[in-house]
Amino acid sequence: MSLYSKRGVSAQKEEVHAAVRKLDPGLYPHSFCKIYADHLGGDPEWANISHADGAGTKSILAYLHWKETGDLNVWKGIAQDAVAMNLDDLLCIGVHDRFLFSSTIDRNKTRIPGEILEAVINGTQEFFDRLAAFGVNIHFLGGETADVGDLVRTIAVNGTMTARWPRRQLITNEKIAPGQVIVGFASSGQASYESVYNSGLGSNGLTSARHDVLQKYYGEKYPETYEPALDSKVVYIGTKKLSDPVEIEGQTVSVSQLLLSPTRTYAPLVKRLLTEHFQEIKGMIHCSGGGQTKCMKYLPQPVTIIKDNLFAPPPIFGLIADNSGSSPREMYQVFNMGHRLEVFTDERSAEAMIAAAAAFNIPAQVVGRVEPANRNSLVLRGSFGELVY
Amino acid sequence: MSLYSKRGVSAQKEEVHAAVRKLDPGLYPHSFCKIYADHLGGDPEWANISHADGAGTKSILAYLHWKETGDLNVWKGIAQDAVAMNLDDLLCIGVHDRFLFSSTIDRNKTRIPGEILEAVINGTQEFFDRLAAFGVNIHFLGGETADVGDLVRTIAVNGTMTARWPRRQLITNEKIAPGQVIVGFASSGQASYESVYNSGLGSNGLTSARHDVLQKYYGEKYPETYEPALDSKVVYIGTKKLSDPVEIEGQTVSVSQLLLSPTRTYAPLVKRLLTEHFQEIKGMIHCSGGGQTKCMKYLPQPVTIIKDNLFAPPPIFGLIADNSGSSPREMYQVFNMGHRLEVFTDERSAEAMIAAAAAFNIPAQVVGRVEPANRNSLVLRGSFGELVY
Repeated sequence: MSLYSKRGVSAQKEEVHAAVRKLDPGLYPHSFCKIYADHLGGDPEWANISHADGAGTKSILAYLHWKETGDLNVWKGIAQDAVAMNLDDLLCIGVHDRFLFSSTIDRNKTRIPGEILEAVINGTQEFFDRLAAFGVNIHFLGGETADVGDLVRTIAVNGTMTARWPRRQLITNEKIAPGQVIVGFASSGQASYESVYNSGLGSNGLTSARHDVLQKYYGEKYPETYEPALDSKVVYIGTKKLSDPVEIEGQTVSVSQLLLSPTRTYAPLVKRLLTEHFQEIKGMIHCSGGGQTKCMKYLPQPVTIIKDNLFAPPPIFGLIADNSGSSPREMYQVFNMGHRLEVFTDERSAEAMIAAAAAFNIPAQVVGRVEPANRNSLVLRGSFGELVY
Repeated sequence: MSLYSKRGVSAQKEEVHAAVRKLDPGLYPHSFCKIYADHLGGDPEWANISHADGAGTKSILAYLHWKETGDLNVWKGIAQDAVAMNLDDLLCIGVHDRFLFSSTIDRNKTRIPGEILEAVINGTQEFFDRLAAFGVNIHFLGGETADVGDLVRTIAVNGTMTARWPRRQLITNEKIAPGQVIVGFASSGQASYESVYNSGLGSNGLTSARHDVLQKYYGEKYPETYEPALDSKVVYIGTKKLSDPVEIEGQTVSVSQLLLSPTRTYAPLVKRLLTEHFQEIKGMIHCSGGGQTKCMKYLPQPVTIIKDNLFAPPPIFGLIADNSGSSPREMYQVFNMGHRLEVFTDERSAEAMIAAAAAFNIPAQVVGRVEPANRNSLVLRGSFGELVY
């Protein structure tokens, strides 16, 4: 039994996939998000999408940081996480504008004061204001905030994003085919529209990262931050405190800044890619839960995906691997390890997309390619050797 | 400090209202749900709504029932609760068809197996199938199910419902005015489209109801069902077990059946009212959180609301009041106490609406009226005396 499952999480979500198997799968079986007929407009040339996601257990890290420092701004990052985890999924089907957003916040009022709600809700609108400057318009239509302390230990921040989009402007992954290259866009660094260094972590694998990296101290002082039935051998078993310094590219940052780095959105870049290169984008994947194996769920035909020119993993992933002792096989299956967005395209267009990303100060490179095969497989190659999934 | 606030809940949600005060209030300041411009269609004659709500702590009652009996069907009721709490809010602005629904489920995998996820998700679709027979079409566009046991003690079931609707078919409460009567539609009994007796409880006030009615046994055996920092004087302080029998209208039911009765939706009835009496419906209120005082938030001008012909409270509310010792003032402020939907209209139309409700076997009556005043006030009169809010 892996550490992951001992903590009550599953990277591949097998039970969830079983539970939804009777639901309408939507119009395009391989699209990154489920896409449906235009129930809202009745137009056969349009489609509807309603997508839900959230900050997950990253809010627990924010809680620990806030308890230790009193810094409320960390909750604005959680607001960004809940939005970006939705937004970047929707980018992958080609939607880049005119979104509706509704938030769902479940809090334990005995632990979470109103000023945290304000920081999350105002942080959401501030993030939308920043994106609007890039032509990515998200309309905040309200939401629900419930006091459910018997249900939630601290705070759960979720959101639902809805869109209506012309079918001819959708990316459905149907065109992924042998001969294409895969462009990876860096998850870390500082994009032109970010104000500080982004560790690249996103909002996946945070249960593991938190317990693997942080010291026992946090479990002892804040028992409200973990399920008490967990084996103490998997609870806060790391060596770090949130305030510990880490050297990154010549800067000193804290463990807290790395773990709580708000999920980067690729929206400003992807809007440009979709506007200028729509015909050449054959598929698009958000490497969220499932990490570098995520693409395998969306392939329309048997192929071998070879990624042999991956980014060097940003320091946050080294920190997690060092503390957890996780193998590269596990790390690449849970975390993005360097790029959280990948586009399937031709070699020539890849060059143009890499140039477009450079204009946003987002490093990008051809990380791999699609080869013909009789059955689906994935090969990752790098300094860690070769991993086959 | 009230029992309610000692349990970390607030009937009036003051902190939440403060937190959202900077957000766009929408097109109609008094409408029951926030209504926005048609971002999805760009048509000035249409509007968009995206609304979030959930089953709240009612899922804890389902958990207790399931642990004690193994009965998975109770989770289908929770699915209905999460839908009806959204749907019946949206009915109050006049929307009755072409809904999108997306679910957000946060679970503790160490406590909640996959078969519960299946029951909730399939129960959602089954409820939609039943409503479609009445011309109320809700399209299930998927959702997110997250394993977040460090965050959630058992399971949180939420949903978001999105609609696009012609502005001329909206109910905005702007027309509520002196001289109108208020028709209340019973929350309990057995509507023609329900298969068993409905206690009328809905999904509000369940934290109070659970702790006030149920015995200490549940807290001792299932510590995962409450916030451990709560004063033990407010935790499971009632006299009942879930399996205890209660006599209702000649039938014997259990406490469990009363507390877990799925939230009635009024959708089949309201669809008919909106179709046949749209011009005569001057306002519509879902008496959810806030109970019989809920209407006071949506009045467009100073009036006195007098409700002096209320339904006799269904037995579930007597059970809660007997166990909690709550005053009528508190009970009417938290629970619907007999009708969960009210329509503001003229006397003659009231008769027609009451007849329409009878066809669905939903008792309805003129419960009150609107009188001129210089400032807003609410008067409730009945066998409990007179309550002024």
